[in-house]
Amino acid sequence: MDSSNGKAGEIGYGFEDREELEMILHHQEREVRVARSASAAMGNRMNLWVESIFESQAVPSWKDQLTWRAFGVSFLLSVLFSFIVMKLNLTTGIIPSLNVSAGLLGFFFIKTWTKLLSRAGLLRLPFTRQENTVIQTCVVASSGIAFSGGFGSYLFGMSEQIAKQSSDIQDANQVKDPSLLWMIGFLLVVSFLGLFAVVPLRKIMIIDFKLTYPSRTATAHLINSFHTPEGAKLAKKQVRALGKFFSFSFLWGFFQWFYTAGEDCGFSSFPSLGLKAFENRFYFDFSATYVGVGMICPYIVNVSVLLGGVLSWGIIWPLIENKRGDWYPANLPLSSMHSLQGYKVFIAIAMILGDGLYNFFKVLSRTLSGLYLQLRNRDPSAALPVANDSKSSAAAMSYDDERRSQIFLKDRIPNWFALAGYVIIAVVSIIILPHMFPQLKWYYILVIYLFAPTLGFCNAYGCGLTDWSLAPTYGKLAIFVIGTWAGSAHGGVIAGLAACGVMMNIVSTASDLTQDFKTGYLTLASPRSMFVSQVIGTAMGCVISPCVFWLFYKAFKDLGQPKSEYPVPYALVYRGMAVLGTEGFSSLTRQCLQLCYGFFAAAIVINVVKDSLPKRWGRFVPLPMAMAIPFYLGSYFAIDMCVGSLLLFVWEKVNKGKADAFGPAVASGLICGDGIWALPNSILALAGVNPPICMKFLSRATNVRVDKFLNS
Amino acid sequence: MDSSNGKAGEIGYGFEDREELEMILHHQEREVRVARSASAAMGNRMNLWVESIFESQAVPSWKDQLTWRAFGVSFLLSVLFSFIVMKLNLTTGIIPSLNVSAGLLGFFFIKTWTKLLSRAGLLRLPFTRQENTVIQTCVVASSGIAFSGGFGSYLFGMSEQIAKQSSDIQDANQVKDPSLLWMIGFLLVVSFLGLFAVVPLRKIMIIDFKLTYPSRTATAHLINSFHTPEGAKLAKKQVRALGKFFSFSFLWGFFQWFYTAGEDCGFSSFPSLGLKAFENRFYFDFSATYVGVGMICPYIVNVSVLLGGVLSWGIIWPLIENKRGDWYPANLPLSSMHSLQGYKVFIAIAMILGDGLYNFFKVLSRTLSGLYLQLRNRDPSAALPVANDSKSSAAAMSYDDERRSQIFLKDRIPNWFALAGYVIIAVVSIIILPHMFPQLKWYYILVIYLFAPTLGFCNAYGCGLTDWSLAPTYGKLAIFVIGTWAGSAHGGVIAGLAACGVMMNIVSTASDLTQDFKTGYLTLASPRSMFVSQVIGTAMGCVISPCVFWLFYKAFKDLGQPKSEYPVPYALVYRGMAVLGTEGFSSLTRQCLQLCYGFFAAAIVINVVKDSLPKRWGRFVPLPMAMAIPFYLGSYFAIDMCVGSLLLFVWEKVNKGKADAFGPAVASGLICGDGIWALPNSILALAGVNPPICMKFLSRATNVRVDKFLNS
Repeated sequence: MDSSNGKAGEIGYGFEDREELEMILHHQEREVRVARSASAAMGNRMNLWVESIFESQAVPSWKDQLTWRAFGVSFLLSVLFSFIVMKLNLTTGIIPSLNVSAGLLGFFFIKTWTKLLSRAGLLRLPFTRQENTVIQTCVVASSGIAFSGGFGSYLFGMSEQIAKQSSDIQDANQVKDPSLLWMIGFLLVVSFLGLFAVVPLRKIMIIDFKLTYPSRTATAHLINSFHTPEGAKLAKKQVRALGKFFSFSFLWGFFQWFYTAGEDCGFSSFPSLGLKAFENRFYFDFSATYVGVGMICPYIVNVSVLLGGVLSWGIIWPLIENKRGDWYPANLPLSSMHSLQGYKVFIAIAMILGDGLYNFFKVLSRTLSGLYLQLRNRDPSAALPVANDSKSSAAAMSYDDERRSQIFLKDRIPNWFALAGYVIIAVVSIIILPHMFPQLKWYYILVIYLFAPTLGFCNAYGCGLTDWSLAPTYGKLAIFVIGTWAGSAHGGVIAGLAACGVMMNIVSTASDLTQDFKTGYLTLASPRSMFVSQVIGTAMGCVISPCVFWLFYKAFKDLGQPKSEYPVPYALVYRGMAVLGTEGFSSLTRQCLQLCYGFFAAAIVINVVKDSLPKRWGRFVPLPMAMAIPFYLGSYFAIDMCVGSLLLFVWEKVNKGKADAFGPAVASGLICGDGIWALPNSILALAGVNPPICMKFLSRATNVRVDKFLNS
Repeated sequence: MDSSNGKAGEIGYGFEDREELEMILHHQEREVRVARSASAAMGNRMNLWVESIFESQAVPSWKDQLTWRAFGVSFLLSVLFSFIVMKLNLTTGIIPSLNVSAGLLGFFFIKTWTKLLSRAGLLRLPFTRQENTVIQTCVVASSGIAFSGGFGSYLFGMSEQIAKQSSDIQDANQVKDPSLLWMIGFLLVVSFLGLFAVVPLRKIMIIDFKLTYPSRTATAHLINSFHTPEGAKLAKKQVRALGKFFSFSFLWGFFQWFYTAGEDCGFSSFPSLGLKAFENRFYFDFSATYVGVGMICPYIVNVSVLLGGVLSWGIIWPLIENKRGDWYPANLPLSSMHSLQGYKVFIAIAMILGDGLYNFFKVLSRTLSGLYLQLRNRDPSAALPVANDSKSSAAAMSYDDERRSQIFLKDRIPNWFALAGYVIIAVVSIIILPHMFPQLKWYYILVIYLFAPTLGFCNAYGCGLTDWSLAPTYGKLAIFVIGTWAGSAHGGVIAGLAACGVMMNIVSTASDLTQDFKTGYLTLASPRSMFVSQVIGTAMGCVISPCVFWLFYKAFKDLGQPKSEYPVPYALVYRGMAVLGTEGFSSLTRQCLQLCYGFFAAAIVINVVKDSLPKRWGRFVPLPMAMAIPFYLGSYFAIDMCVGSLLLFVWEKVNKGKADAFGPAVASGLICGDGIWALPNSILALAGVNPPICMKFLSRATNVRVDKFLNS
């Protein structure tokens, strides 16, 4: 899963362009519940105007909202979350929503800082929720780049490591290895365009259309609640829970490290469900990260992933393996793209594309019909079955809305500024990009930039309705369109992948900024400070993310190798799509092509069934997108996630209140601790410090041989 | 540690003849606290007469106290606890008090059974506390044999496995291998004598001397509390906690099993603190049993064990190892008794003997002075700093005492019966035993039997004062006396070890029965039913324990091997003592002898310091006995125990009330679950079902070699 749903550029919990409404609802409910329990402070007052609680607090000017300390903390958190997102990117590509932890940690750091200063008598500015929103925006923008930068997908898909595993013709024209410099340059050139594209539309989206942006509304509630006394108290407890599990997870990662001297060593190779199951990549790998991810993702996601893993590695792959020598040559190793591995990758691609396409049209049709109704000045939410968190406050619009609109409209951003910014950046990037990628002609980029504002608007609008960003789908569209246009002979693979990057970055930052405006609107933060914070965050991300990736790339030599610690599954998938786009289906065997058609159709059919069933049945239908990931990787992380699910489920049974209030904090702690362990881990690897012990798992027969060998 | 303190034949928590008063107090406090919290029911009434609460309940006749169902449950629990005690015997010899779990489980089973019957309308007899006491007595008697039977000490010390590791002359006369038949016969012949020896003295001990028997008083309180409504409710919760941790511990044992295909495989060889530490047997071995043991044992015990392990394996052994070729021949392997291994064993023996001797004289002097005061009709507890749990009820004697004495004196056991029983059994065993052990002449046995009643009385009396059974010390005395008498040429080793068994069994069953009388007195159970229950329990134990041992013996071929799963440390230690007794110090090198003198003296000095310091400092002085165990085994189990300590400590910090109420139940669950896993484990081993996987730990260098070997 390679997307940040509903919040392009934000740390979505990423089901690509796929993120079922129910899932969102489920997730939102949880997040909103947290926000609500956090805002117990507001108690009954919650039913009154939220803004009346904050009436006594003056709103600082937009310049005062942008403090040095806010950006200092943002930088720290950006590095933290970049590591976490990068680790997730490179292991499975499943990225859960880290909103809660970003919010909590931002609040915690500034709160501690201001407390220290005020004790020392040095505090000039009190900590306001506007400042909190600025941090949130900046961190989310910055760490969003770690995802939309494509280090786990299109960008790393260009590298030689991945090209070698792919089925395409191997020549220098089809390969571009990562290098720190061009990655930073590329990101700087393409990441800002989207921001300027949607600035002029902010009033229409937020004030006129009153789009909901469910996850951002929840984040805003969370931030508001932090700044009430009881909310702050709960937040403190949540931070403590997060800290506890952060330490545990970090130390667990550290402990595991000692036993990984060599391949197939350590807890991540623990055949916890038997050797036979292990061979089919079915085991619990003791990863705190994915246990935490499982606690955050909705149950249906976890179940779908597990189901996909069992179906593919338990049934389909063994069946295909039996056809060796029949469907594909027996003399090739099974890991070759022209052998079993090819089936795995292309069937996964077929399923992802089928699901993506279905949902693309679904969201597009909703966007268009919503827009149509909107323009006729009717409330779109009435016509659309959307997660409408503000419904409850719908009756309570007047005072809150009045105050919020007033603040929102006070600081303007002139349209000429947006237009000028867009044109200048577009020209610069049209000049620069073809120098980086000779395969990407200047006119390809021009075409993309002509369509980009429209697509950016579509995505920002659809996201406001459904909380669901289609950025990766637009990216795939670019792969196929530009890839086909360039053609195999002219380096279509690289052109396609690079175009994907250009497209994804524009579209995702566009919807991202719109979402920030929503958060700002709800917390009385100025649109100007939001824009500046987003720009600064994006700039940070453009530097931090490539550096983080570079650290991983240099530290772990087997990056992208199928069974390594960091298999980077989406890199091969994206390259596979680019190959399909340029070379067509000729590279597939007849049986593989037919299977791909089947799975493509199945993905669409499952979606149709899910959407046509009544919700109470539909929510039990698995998600094809989620099912496709373990096709390539196997189900080990699915088992981690299900363990996380199970833990949360039991916790909810035992104490629902506590589970709701602390579950996300615990999950975030687990994810962050293990994620940040990647930093010392890669530094140790770079410094050449190797773990001292190998925890090896041998079958009894092998063990006897090894013992004999060791004793001889 | 090879003793059941204060309750010979009972499941003591066994610090041999060594069990510091503070330790007992500490432990007792904990146990009494449980009993008290359990008897919350009694609330303020606890301060009134206990018996007034039970006034309305008729006391059943002694025959009605002995029900079939009680003995059915006793049999089940006896098997359970025999497994657990045997496992503890064979791994380290540290046996914690399982009183609470025996009480809880006995209550739970009969309660469930009577509830089922009463629902079916079939219940004739309600479940009374007298019946509960009968079960407790029977189970404790039966599983006590698993300890006093010497399967982990003198009895297995006769076997060829242990003889091969020992330093003595290897001939058939010095070896007697275990066999099911003679073990059962031996136990049947020697185990009943002690019972008859103390029967006539019961009134003097319980009514006249009012001896406290702290642990049994606590058990009686526990049983009383179970039979109040609130106590029953708490007991139910405790049983649930026990059950939960029982299952966890059992499943954990099962899970571990899968990874033990071969030597040095699995979690018990996990170098959790590094390879270097592992080589010095310093690691956490993930044993649920010893984590539970650590939760039950007082902190000072755990710390002493760890200290002993660190001192010996961290400092002393490496120093002695450096003297290889100087102090002892370099051509022998370090595991030879004439090499480093000898130092380990004999230094441990010296420390154990020093400690034992000191405490023997300490308790003996207290016994004699107490007896002297007692016979002059003064309250001995005033003169003795003894754990006096009944002090609080001292003011409240009259009503309770009146009722209890009345019941206690109602059912008499005629003295002629006791005398006849003693003489008949003595004659039978004098005839039979020399046939089993030709080395043990009939006149040795006669001498033992002439002194036995006096020693049995001494032990029962001392135990009543100090809660501390000296049975193993009397056993060691017998080893030296009879061993020396018989001499090396006439199989003195076997004669000494067999005499140890005879002596230990008499002395421990004697104090055991007296303790039962105390429990019976406090719960209004008849002395007759206590006696019968003890006899039946002992008979059960004489059959069950050898069978359980036999299962282990047959299933695990490496029983008694130093680094195996079951090293049976005390078997070699006891044999070592017998060798010393018969051959003198000639088998030791000069340096070893001097070191032994040093450690012998050190053990005494530490004890003197501990006793002469004020209590608040003295309690920080380690226990030499506890320090000696890891001398031979290493500190791995000490680390488990310290982890248990730590968990309890943290739990007490977080929630003292809960920790006190549920700590013992949780610990019992951990111990019992892992212990009972030994049953399926040995059955699997007997059936030839081997674990499928080896979890191996290799250094990086070795791993590289192995990988090369496996890939070639």
